[in-house]
Amino acid sequence: MDYSALNNLSYGMYIVTTKINNKNVGCFINTAMQITSKSHIIAISLNKENYTNKILKETRKCAISILTTKAKNELISKFGYFSSQEINKFENVNYQNIENLPVVLEDVCAYIIGEVMRVIDVDTHDIFLIRVSSAAKVLEEEPMTYRYYHEVLKGTSPKKAPTYQEPKEDKKVNRYQCSICGYIYDDSKEEIPFEDLPDTWTCPLCGVGKDKFIKL
Amino acid sequence: MDYSALNNLSYGMYIVTTKINNKNVGCFINTAMQITSKSHIIAISLNKENYTNKILKETRKCAISILTTKAKNELISKFGYFSSQEINKFENVNYQNIENLPVVLEDVCAYIIGEVMRVIDVDTHDIFLIRVSSAAKVLEEEPMTYRYYHEVLKGTSPKKAPTYQEPKEDKKVNRYQCSICGYIYDDSKEEIPFEDLPDTWTCPLCGVGKDKFIKL
Repeated sequence: MDYSALNNLSYGMYIVTTKINNKNVGCFINTAMQITSKSHIIAISLNKENYTNKILKETRKCAISILTTKAKNELISKFGYFSSQEINKFENVNYQNIENLPVVLEDVCAYIIGEVMRVIDVDTHDIFLIRVSSAAKVLEEEPMTYRYYHEVLKGTSPKKAPTYQEPKEDKKVNRYQCSICGYIYDDSKEEIPFEDLPDTWTCPLCGVGKDKFIKL
Repeated sequence: MDYSALNNLSYGMYIVTTKINNKNVGCFINTAMQITSKSHIIAISLNKENYTNKILKETRKCAISILTTKAKNELISKFGYFSSQEINKFENVNYQNIENLPVVLEDVCAYIIGEVMRVIDVDTHDIFLIRVSSAAKVLEEEPMTYRYYHEVLKGTSPKKAPTYQEPKEDKKVNRYQCSICGYIYDDSKEEIPFEDLPDTWTCPLCGVGKDKFIKL
């Protein structure tokens, strides 16, 4: 059994947002797909531990912003590795209130707005079936795929993502993982060994300091 | 409302197969996503009118082959635009019997085998939740995305696909659509107008003759 075979499934890069009592809430997802063409129903998957999951069950309405290949790591890691319960993810982010939802428009090629018609409990996650009520294009740019994010931006899956995989053990090479975002610094692939990096060095993905890295 | 915004969602290119009474059955899908990471559950969407949908409800077991960018149009259109009820799609296709399933291995980077744990009725389609029982890599090549298929191979969605969209009317330019596979020949984008193509010309996607094309 080679679970890494599942990494060959294709995904996009999305930010799902909603609003409760004037508070903007949202998180990063890579799982979204259209289920029917005539009635325009899409399905997204959200971890049950996710704050956005809990809130979306209340508000029953959300926006899904589709990120382009120009989307910055800071945006992805802010929405992917932190909780809306703890920080205001929308600070310094280009978004607009559309249909009373905070729709992220920063490096976004299109957005979709819809109502939750059903929540399906699947083990650790819920599938939200969303009936599309409006949709619009924003920038004429290519949508980012999850593969692009992994290979070009060297991103990793948050632990709560459906596509998360436990890091493989490899004791021969020194590898260091960011405890905040999961980014892996692999000495064998870099010019400077991790230990020799200056103290001012920060995680290229989420921006935290060297001290937040753990040797694998 | 611009439904074409939904085209910016990212998908892969897959062939789902099963076997009933020694008969190999399968079809092309672009909707597959991992729902949970710990228990490895994936979701696929299949049109209710699809023969493979009916059979999969009986067999409750299937293989999903992930196509690479090298996959040929003939393979995609055979599995996408015809029915296993009418033709043997597996003839002249590289496949192997694995766990009593006909697993397509032609231009495939990985395959996943699993059991149907639940079928969710969503309007015209069903979501099949599949618990992965085995998975393997085949070729070290890049998985094909649906966008690549559209833009590089100029493919189109079959009418039964969740991503199918009605062709837009455009009376200024002569456009001809293949009635079998939906391929559009657009005079404004081609060197030779459709009417001037030789009678021996065939659809680049599904291979049928010029007479199967309808002027839009």
